[in-house]
Amino acid sequence: MNLDDLYKNLLVANDSKLALVVFDGLGDIATEETGFRTPLEAARTPNLDALAKYATQGRMIPVAPGITPGSGPGHLGLFGYDPLEYEVGRGVIEALGLGINLKHGDVAARANFCSLNDKGIVTDRRAGRIDTKVCEEQCALLAKKNKKIGDVELIIKAGKGHRFVVVFRGKGLEGPLSDTDPHREGLPIATAKPLGKSTNTAKTAKVVAQFYKQALPLLKTCKPANGFLLRGIAHQPKIPTFEERYGLKAAAIAIYPMYKGLAQLVGMKKIEGPSTVKEEFEAAVDALKAFDYVFVHVKATDTAGEDGNFQAKVAAIEEADAALSILMKQMPTVLAITADHSTPVPVKGHSWHPQPVMICSDIAGWDGLDRFTERAANQGSLGVFESKYLIRLMQANAKRLDKFGA
Amino acid sequence: MNLDDLYKNLLVANDSKLALVVFDGLGDIATEETGFRTPLEAARTPNLDALAKYATQGRMIPVAPGITPGSGPGHLGLFGYDPLEYEVGRGVIEALGLGINLKHGDVAARANFCSLNDKGIVTDRRAGRIDTKVCEEQCALLAKKNKKIGDVELIIKAGKGHRFVVVFRGKGLEGPLSDTDPHREGLPIATAKPLGKSTNTAKTAKVVAQFYKQALPLLKTCKPANGFLLRGIAHQPKIPTFEERYGLKAAAIAIYPMYKGLAQLVGMKKIEGPSTVKEEFEAAVDALKAFDYVFVHVKATDTAGEDGNFQAKVAAIEEADAALSILMKQMPTVLAITADHSTPVPVKGHSWHPQPVMICSDIAGWDGLDRFTERAANQGSLGVFESKYLIRLMQANAKRLDKFGA
Repeated sequence: MNLDDLYKNLLVANDSKLALVVFDGLGDIATEETGFRTPLEAARTPNLDALAKYATQGRMIPVAPGITPGSGPGHLGLFGYDPLEYEVGRGVIEALGLGINLKHGDVAARANFCSLNDKGIVTDRRAGRIDTKVCEEQCALLAKKNKKIGDVELIIKAGKGHRFVVVFRGKGLEGPLSDTDPHREGLPIATAKPLGKSTNTAKTAKVVAQFYKQALPLLKTCKPANGFLLRGIAHQPKIPTFEERYGLKAAAIAIYPMYKGLAQLVGMKKIEGPSTVKEEFEAAVDALKAFDYVFVHVKATDTAGEDGNFQAKVAAIEEADAALSILMKQMPTVLAITADHSTPVPVKGHSWHPQPVMICSDIAGWDGLDRFTERAANQGSLGVFESKYLIRLMQANAKRLDKFGA
Repeated sequence: MNLDDLYKNLLVANDSKLALVVFDGLGDIATEETGFRTPLEAARTPNLDALAKYATQGRMIPVAPGITPGSGPGHLGLFGYDPLEYEVGRGVIEALGLGINLKHGDVAARANFCSLNDKGIVTDRRAGRIDTKVCEEQCALLAKKNKKIGDVELIIKAGKGHRFVVVFRGKGLEGPLSDTDPHREGLPIATAKPLGKSTNTAKTAKVVAQFYKQALPLLKTCKPANGFLLRGIAHQPKIPTFEERYGLKAAAIAIYPMYKGLAQLVGMKKIEGPSTVKEEFEAAVDALKAFDYVFVHVKATDTAGEDGNFQAKVAAIEEADAALSILMKQMPTVLAITADHSTPVPVKGHSWHPQPVMICSDIAGWDGLDRFTERAANQGSLGVFESKYLIRLMQANAKRLDKFGA
């Protein structure tokens, strides 16, 4: 029997409340540079420590051993969707990150301005890294003159520097298409070609070609950004919703648009408003009155890791630990605390190191560990497992999965 | 290469003796309610402690993360059969539990008496939970008047309260069929419909319909149990025997019929006689003279867990630990001690928590652990793995698996 089908057959409804708290990029490593301890070990975390007594710990592999995930696969795994089965194009992730409300069937592309010579050869793939302001002006120009191509609506939105996003919205569109980015200078802009077998991808390729035909002349006098390249052209994949898969009405609380967008991809309701970690946890307490499941995303841990700033990561952990007390006063039936991936200070970026996870509930069982850290988690009874099973363990702790077989 | 095929290709025969001792439901959790320790931790276990020095430990996932198994999937996993690949219907398990010697191809159904009004509508799905004695009388009546339907033999056996089992034995029978139980009151008895594509299921559905036609009139004057419902109608699946798969002649020692039945499902020889844990271990020593592998099932640990009785579980562990010394005097080449699943005292039922496992042999290697407990096992070199691999580790420790590749 297919395992996902089995899990679905065993679903039980009850009044339990589930919360997933993601400290983005929390997982870290102890090296000589960090005094052989991790930020989690160095931080003062009275609330996490208190929870550890009612929790089981382990470590999670976001995708597969050695694979460093982006935020997309990282979060899909946490939400229980195998990141190898449910692939989300980079255009879609980028669009979500800019706060565009994607609809099913929309095709999104990452775009960036580039420089072309008079023969149409790409001389600089990033157009000298133009200012965001210039990018915004040129995007406004493109948007104004390219509202529609036939029956297809276009959404063009500037990002940072030379980056922007193009979304094609209409019937019968589908990706993926090959990049128009030649991936090195000295070549002309490539043609976006259908990568799948669907006839819809052929239609989409025609729309993209027509967009280039209309848009390039508009940029003719723009210097140095007189061209643009598209990458990761794909449609928003069809993903069964969180409620369909788990019978859980779910809400998402995040400050950054991309995480709200990723949660929306699986059908969570995004809660707008919070702009601090404290406000996020206050919103979580509120959300659990109306929803069965809440996802809370804390960003600062990842940013500090990306910056390679040990002290900033310690501070981010301590701030989140303090805010956690708000949720602990209205303790949900099951509370899972983890990361979407590790962002170790010595790596200064995402990594493949398994992130620590702690699941708290009345029937989680104490692993005999007094703190929640990477090395404590190594001794937990959950062992090392793939992120996609986290939701299953949360369901089990909430008694939302029936017994299998007699 | 298929992994099962690889294991089979690597099989080596030798004179080693293997023993699997299952303390049913042994795994537990430490919570505030239990003084933050598990029954295994609280119990005095000199024999398990002595074995720990010659053993490697770990924890096992019976089916998949978060899945709570019944005894069927739990034991199939321990015997090395993937519970998702080899599904055993609830009717089959129930029949085994009543001590019916099922043959391959038999179709078995869980049955229970119900109450019908004069329009044939189910008014009570459990017939007011009639006494076992009434159930036995009515089953005797049904059995007497329904010995055969065409060439199909019927076996009808009473269980506890309103429950009984019906086995259909004959050529060309096959499940699964849909339940005749409408699963709520106010509806008539449903028709058992073929769920698979095999034409044999159609024949089986006709036999079931004919059984109803003959049996219901016999119950017309029985009050309140004037009807009956069938569930989990399925045939005994075709399972390669233990000897075919592992080259091991295997014997099973258990007091309760269901566990003997599950062992028989995979071709183990059941040893009758023992009625105490001590007698079970004495029988195991005897069995290992004639067999390569013996499975010993200890029930009391599970019963105590189901009752939520910490002290009873401690006592059951201590009794089993004492009896273990009998087997230790004739130490088999490989001795594995584990559970089919956890039955934690705070849960009062089966659970998904990984059960601890200890494999003792001259070449298991000591994990540096002085006791065998859930939290010791977290630090063992076996890590957390699926139960279905236990037999492979036992084979390896018995040097019954050759090297793969040069």
